[in-house]
Amino acid sequence: MLKNDTFLRALQRQPVDYTPVWLMRQAGRYLPEYCATRKVAGSFLQLCKSKELATEVTLQPLERFPLDAAILFSDILTVPDAMGLGLYFAEGEGPKFERPLRDEAAIKALAVPDMHELQYVFDAVSSIRAALDNRVPLIGFSGSPFTLACYMIEGGGSDDFRRVKTMMYDRPDLLHHILEINALTVIDYLNAQIDAGAQAVQIFDTWGGALAYGKYQEFSLAYMSKIVAGLKREKDGQRIPVILFTKGGGQWLEDLAATGCDALGLDWTVNLAEARRRVGDKVALQGNFDPNALFAKPVAIEQEVKRLLADYGNGSGHVFNLGHGISQFTNPEHVAALVEAVHRHSKAYK
Amino acid sequence: MLKNDTFLRALQRQPVDYTPVWLMRQAGRYLPEYCATRKVAGSFLQLCKSKELATEVTLQPLERFPLDAAILFSDILTVPDAMGLGLYFAEGEGPKFERPLRDEAAIKALAVPDMHELQYVFDAVSSIRAALDNRVPLIGFSGSPFTLACYMIEGGGSDDFRRVKTMMYDRPDLLHHILEINALTVIDYLNAQIDAGAQAVQIFDTWGGALAYGKYQEFSLAYMSKIVAGLKREKDGQRIPVILFTKGGGQWLEDLAATGCDALGLDWTVNLAEARRRVGDKVALQGNFDPNALFAKPVAIEQEVKRLLADYGNGSGHVFNLGHGISQFTNPEHVAALVEAVHRHSKAYK
Repeated sequence: MLKNDTFLRALQRQPVDYTPVWLMRQAGRYLPEYCATRKVAGSFLQLCKSKELATEVTLQPLERFPLDAAILFSDILTVPDAMGLGLYFAEGEGPKFERPLRDEAAIKALAVPDMHELQYVFDAVSSIRAALDNRVPLIGFSGSPFTLACYMIEGGGSDDFRRVKTMMYDRPDLLHHILEINALTVIDYLNAQIDAGAQAVQIFDTWGGALAYGKYQEFSLAYMSKIVAGLKREKDGQRIPVILFTKGGGQWLEDLAATGCDALGLDWTVNLAEARRRVGDKVALQGNFDPNALFAKPVAIEQEVKRLLADYGNGSGHVFNLGHGISQFTNPEHVAALVEAVHRHSKAYK
Repeated sequence: MLKNDTFLRALQRQPVDYTPVWLMRQAGRYLPEYCATRKVAGSFLQLCKSKELATEVTLQPLERFPLDAAILFSDILTVPDAMGLGLYFAEGEGPKFERPLRDEAAIKALAVPDMHELQYVFDAVSSIRAALDNRVPLIGFSGSPFTLACYMIEGGGSDDFRRVKTMMYDRPDLLHHILEINALTVIDYLNAQIDAGAQAVQIFDTWGGALAYGKYQEFSLAYMSKIVAGLKREKDGQRIPVILFTKGGGQWLEDLAATGCDALGLDWTVNLAEARRRVGDKVALQGNFDPNALFAKPVAIEQEVKRLLADYGNGSGHVFNLGHGISQFTNPEHVAALVEAVHRHSKAYK
């Protein structure tokens, strides 16, 4: 059915002709056509909530670059918004919540939301699948329970996670309650994305790397593990691979690989050869180009691509990606050079 | 001579009665007496440049807490300031440079400054040593060549190190030139601090952890290694231990330990037991309490201290510290609880 299933095959460590590539935040502000559509939408949230516009921006990078996967255009904070926390975007300030979790009563009242609250996401998934017409697979996604909790407790972004960490050390029971609700919600949310047509799912643990050793395992990894166990892993006879990505989690790859997920996202601090040795045959690896190396000229980008491909070495099980979302200041021509270099130079390793 | 040499003994993995403790940024804004002295100074830079006031704030935390070491009150950016880049602090914006390194001519003109430009730092060291009266050892410090280069090229703090990384990938020769000058300067600077009375030195590699695998080794570690080789390691028959601290460097401990330094600083993502196994007998370990865990109540702080001490286990070679500088929002009573817990609970492991 799929015209290009290289991405799904690589995630299952099956033979491929070349290393597939997609880029975190590939539909984003570095593309002028994205900025134009966002302007039409009026706001970032409206863009997420319109299935037509979300479909349009999801497909934009595929029109420019021969990417091997599409990723649903949405935001990880749709989930706490559906829980009633009141997501909004203050101009130039990033995401905020009107009603962050600041007292025990609010935390105890937190519940798994009705998935109808998130129907617009599932509608976008169906719409994108139809528009893709089996060109490449569609990735669904969610934030990790801990990463969502950071925003829900802090009420927005944070440099030091002061409120989260105070709760973690003083009232771990309250944080565990939030994480439990988040994990159950993410299971429902990702399963509904899979029902709507997502062919792989990724959990973004953007802030797990801010945790101390031990706390990461207890407060982030354990809940991602629970999600992996609760997801539909097959649909219509096709495996639905699950990718876990903890930014800053390079020291914990063995723990992540033991969750039963199919693949790990890696940031750029990790050496691919060493990571492959550490996780063995358990999982595929996705990453790990430094997104800020895209500021360099195409010739330097090509060199870095060659280095990463050589680090991974022969065989399947590698999905090329950035180690974090693409910067808004990136030149699209540099992205074209990256994708071209991955496709061209990876054939020798297959 | 020294009344309390526990810190220096632990750095050399010699027997100690308890685990010594000091805290990065222990003289800082969380102390009201520090804020009062800073007000007298007029500005942060004036505070650094007055040996009397620098001495006063260096000793303030020792009056409150039975810390096992003092650290020179200064700033890592004194070095590029002495190179002529024009350091200033814009209110509420952090450090900035008037003349950041933005073109090849400016980079080629960069030179090791005359150490007389930094005489105020060495005067502060002598003054603090006299005021300490051998109560505890005094630590001197510097930024790492790469961390200094980040500020020198970006012209201030940065989220993405766009200019540094563009140079690294497009013109590695220019970045290597800056790093070479920085390394030679840091050697002179730390040796002069040692001459003035510093009894141990620490190199703060705050931004090395932002580098990709391979780039870290080439652009940060190699220059710290050069510094380690160029430092006076003994004075008046006493070993002058060198501590290297790369924040976010937990994956590279073996590389750091191979530089010939005496100890490694560890952030909170590292497991102490595992780190000890990885570096073997090569180095002592310093760290690694999450500074944001100090927001928790004293009873929770004590629990975390016990966990870290148990992780390190029996024997010497551990200096207790935070995994990063103390937050300005920290309650000094919580710091007192931390220091007391380290001293009390560590005796059982010695």
